[in-house]
Amino acid sequence: MAIVLGPNRYGKAETRVVRVTRDGGTHQIKDLNVSVALSGDMERVHLVGDNTAVLPTDSQKNTVFAFAKKYGIGEIEEFALLLARHFADSQPAVAHARVEIEEYGWSRISGGHSFVRSGTEVRTALVHSDGSDGPESVVSGLKDLVVLNSTGSEFHGFAQDEYTTLEPTDDRILATAVTATWRHRGTGADFASSYAEARRCLLEAFAGTHSLSLQQTLYAMGRRVLEERPELCEVRLAMPNKHHFLVDLSPFGMDNDNEVYFAADRPYGLIEGTVLASDAPAAPAAWA
Amino acid sequence: MAIVLGPNRYGKAETRVVRVTRDGGTHQIKDLNVSVALSGDMERVHLVGDNTAVLPTDSQKNTVFAFAKKYGIGEIEEFALLLARHFADSQPAVAHARVEIEEYGWSRISGGHSFVRSGTEVRTALVHSDGSDGPESVVSGLKDLVVLNSTGSEFHGFAQDEYTTLEPTDDRILATAVTATWRHRGTGADFASSYAEARRCLLEAFAGTHSLSLQQTLYAMGRRVLEERPELCEVRLAMPNKHHFLVDLSPFGMDNDNEVYFAADRPYGLIEGTVLASDAPAAPAAWA
Amino acid sequence: MAIVLGPNRYGKAETRVVRVTRDGGTHQIKDLNVSVALSGDMERVHLVGDNTAVLPTDSQKNTVFAFAKKYGIGEIEEFALLLARHFADSQPAVAHARVEIEEYGWSRISGGHSFVRSGTEVRTALVHSDGSDGPESVVSGLKDLVVLNSTGSEFHGFAQDEYTTLEPTDDRILATAVTATWRHRGTGADFASSYAEARRCLLEAFAGTHSLSLQQTLYAMGRRVLEERPELCEVRLAMPNKHHFLVDLSPFGMDNDNEVYFAADRPYGLIEGTVLASDAPAAPAAWA
Amino acid sequence: MAIVLGPNRYGKAETRVVRVTRDGGTHQIKDLNVSVALSGDMERVHLVGDNTAVLPTDSQKNTVFAFAKKYGIGEIEEFALLLARHFADSQPAVAHARVEIEEYGWSRISGGHSFVRSGTEVRTALVHSDGSDGPESVVSGLKDLVVLNSTGSEFHGFAQDEYTTLEPTDDRILATAVTATWRHRGTGADFASSYAEARRCLLEAFAGTHSLSLQQTLYAMGRRVLEERPELCEVRLAMPNKHHFLVDLSPFGMDNDNEVYFAADRPYGLIEGTVLASDAPAAPAAWA
Repeated sequence: MAIVLGPNRYGKAETRVVRVTRDGGTHQIKDLNVSVALSGDMERVHLVGDNTAVLPTDSQKNTVFAFAKKYGIGEIEEFALLLARHFADSQPAVAHARVEIEEYGWSRISGGHSFVRSGTEVRTALVHSDGSDGPESVVSGLKDLVVLNSTGSEFHGFAQDEYTTLEPTDDRILATAVTATWRHRGTGADFASSYAEARRCLLEAFAGTHSLSLQQTLYAMGRRVLEERPELCEVRLAMPNKHHFLVDLSPFGMDNDNEVYFAADRPYGLIEGTVLASDAPAAPAAWA
Repeated sequence: MAIVLGPNRYGKAETRVVRVTRDGGTHQIKDLNVSVALSGDMERVHLVGDNTAVLPTDSQKNTVFAFAKKYGIGEIEEFALLLARHFADSQPAVAHARVEIEEYGWSRISGGHSFVRSGTEVRTALVHSDGSDGPESVVSGLKDLVVLNSTGSEFHGFAQDEYTTLEPTDDRILATAVTATWRHRGTGADFASSYAEARRCLLEAFAGTHSLSLQQTLYAMGRRVLEERPELCEVRLAMPNKHHFLVDLSPFGMDNDNEVYFAADRPYGLIEGTVLASDAPAAPAAWA
Repeated sequence: MAIVLGPNRYGKAETRVVRVTRDGGTHQIKDLNVSVALSGDMERVHLVGDNTAVLPTDSQKNTVFAFAKKYGIGEIEEFALLLARHFADSQPAVAHARVEIEEYGWSRISGGHSFVRSGTEVRTALVHSDGSDGPESVVSGLKDLVVLNSTGSEFHGFAQDEYTTLEPTDDRILATAVTATWRHRGTGADFASSYAEARRCLLEAFAGTHSLSLQQTLYAMGRRVLEERPELCEVRLAMPNKHHFLVDLSPFGMDNDNEVYFAADRPYGLIEGTVLASDAPAAPAAWA
Repeated sequence: MAIVLGPNRYGKAETRVVRVTRDGGTHQIKDLNVSVALSGDMERVHLVGDNTAVLPTDSQKNTVFAFAKKYGIGEIEEFALLLARHFADSQPAVAHARVEIEEYGWSRISGGHSFVRSGTEVRTALVHSDGSDGPESVVSGLKDLVVLNSTGSEFHGFAQDEYTTLEPTDDRILATAVTATWRHRGTGADFASSYAEARRCLLEAFAGTHSLSLQQTLYAMGRRVLEERPELCEVRLAMPNKHHFLVDLSPFGMDNDNEVYFAADRPYGLIEGTVLASDAPAAPAAWA
């Protein structure tokens, strides 16, 4: 038996870059968290510490800043593609580049240069590239989109075993923090409108689905995105069931007609699922 | 020398209560985190473990839920006053009650019962009561209001010592996460509009102040609140200077005309200050 | 084009169970965080909200507690196997069960029943089972093992591009928070000693490797584990390079001979790699 | 009514400094998080943005690093005193300096320069100084010391009201994360042994007290410190009651003889108290 090097990657994680663009007195800001991971022929650095093939993560960080200046920052998918192609194209030892970006939202307060952080949610992009001529993939998404339906959610008819004590219910709070990612068929979408529309689909399907289970809601959300967005071929969702337990007020002579809830932290249900277009090309590596 | 018991308090912290109110098909939700702390004659429980004077923190939690049902939840200052008076009035051993509440904001998605968490900021209230007939105080506030000015901020003319290397600047990003608390003169304000207006004052003063230092901005924000809101007598602000450092792009043959910044985590400046109406009654305990 | 359900799973995450075992006046405690995820024929719940196949996550939580009582908690790999087999064997719709456990360490203070939390690190186990007669896998590990070498680490000879400004160094601090997971060949190891020895190997290889790059250290750590532990066939490591930057004290007339460092938060390098026994059976699903 | 500036302070928070000291091949490391806050005549910076009196927080950060080099880092109380005196003595506008330090513990792995982070707890110091000739105070402490007694804790005989449903118990788990701070009578203690002994007192009193309430345990811990350490005059403790709820296993035909617990996150009891030497000089500002 020998011992060998398996899959590996390295890079600079969480470079926090803020880019200001001035159009007269009106400013635009982009606030990103960029993580780069490179892979390729990295055997010698692991085995004998020979760094010839290793572009320092410090240089990767510098590249993020320099590209923010040189090209500006448009949609995060585009900025991620720019970076990924650069590393895969320019570094002989790099066969594959992975760039992950989080974008934090800001709203204008007033005037041209004052902003307030908006929302708890974070927009995300994950791009893989083997170089401008090689296979590439783009996954867009969001996380920490916290939503709640105060009615229109049931849960009954479930399997029962000797450890089941849960009572069925035909009216409960359904609350979750959506993490959603969706895969593009190509790399050239109008990412701004694609994102806005996918997000709208998720919210509308969440709000509009009378839910018999969180799985049903999850599937409806993913399905809605694929139905409306032909540029997308796969949606992945992870949705914690953030339990809101109806408080028993009977010891105090009160009923509780779905009015007072205890919002629990842990444990929580965790529902994860994929919705696919039947003609989606296989691309497991796109999600890694 | 003897050893004696000094100041003390106890209570249930972080009871997470969600209250739904149904007006036909249109629901309202209130999402709170309630912390109660009681104090009074608690010598025997500390010295010999005699719990006669101790209302269990579990009962305090129950009270939060029962009051949410019985009285509904209006403005958090009112709910905190209700709770604080209840404990101070009804428990012989409790001389003083302190109730602190955080409120998380939700926006309506569509229809009557679907919501999405809005903003990163949290509305806060801190109430002290010695009972319905005793001294009381109300402090309102907010935290995690993250704001940024992309220009209109300078910093120069500062003191210099042998450890000073900072270059003066006449254009920088000013970014902070505002924690603000403001003390009411009485306990009967229109808390909803008072909050909305105080928040507006903070944002407008932040956006509208050409800043020579974060201290100046802080003071302008507190001053604006007191100028416009006669029901308030004191504002306290804690504002981290979330440094955005201009990246040196000259090694790459680029200038950086206030375009590309590195958003640093730590260390950060921390500016804390109080703005007072000159006729504000003394009330240090209101802030404890 | 049709829209179809892809891979999915659901379960109760983060059930926090503490198990006390009394041996006369001497107690043992086990402090775990257990997450269960089940998968199988779950099409109808996603498509039409039919919960017939769905064992409530609440029942899964109950099972964790009931099994803690019934069987006690030995090594976390064993407890995870017990749970995973139970779900896969007893639920007709469940083809596959995944159980992930974190264990928090406690040290005895004195006497038989007083403990103090020890270390920042967390022991982990990840088990997959298709049932007692089906394929199974066991992955053990740890996370948040924070280690530092104050010398014996170099970094030079690296690739350079137009964005490279990093100076080579022949003496730096090497600090990281190790997340390591290792796959067992079977399911019947002596998990207690296997864990203790794997952990020892990691620490010794970290301390004993004169490092020319963090990749080299990572590989040495994984290699050491496989060399010494024949019951294991694959090690995966994720190691952030927690940068400690030498502070430039020259403006103050001081040199800095590797004495004073600034410990940065972000960005950080992130090195991820796999070390394999050449005869390791393929098992990508074991890591999912 | 006029609007005036009230109490204020500013400074650099959370400078993360690591200091390596080499004694041949054997290294010592000190890993600190240092926060400085200065106050004095700061009216003009708040009112008109005149920074003449303002030593940049950047200079404060530089001072932390330069002093780490110049003086080394011994006990954190001493390093805090050095810094606080420096700022109060050297800056004309600074009447008062406050320095707060957290220290993270490291244990030696093997050899002379390899370390592993030890424990979850953090050692703390809080120093106030009006200058070498002025009033000064030193408060030492720790936080996140997580301890648990698996028996020897009761809770009964408590007050009951209409919202009380808690059952009395004569055997429960008592678990908490201790935050403790203790005030020195002077500024010249042997801080290393004082800390080690105070910590030992806290642990021994926690383990050795048969508890009828967490308040009783808290008081016993503070009392033990003052009884054994004449250099100290006041102890403050904040101890969350980290509830471990006995799981009801009766639906599964099992009893639960204090064996299986659910460790809850929120809400939690929070017990805060002070233990004083009767001759302790008043010093509320020491804790601010």
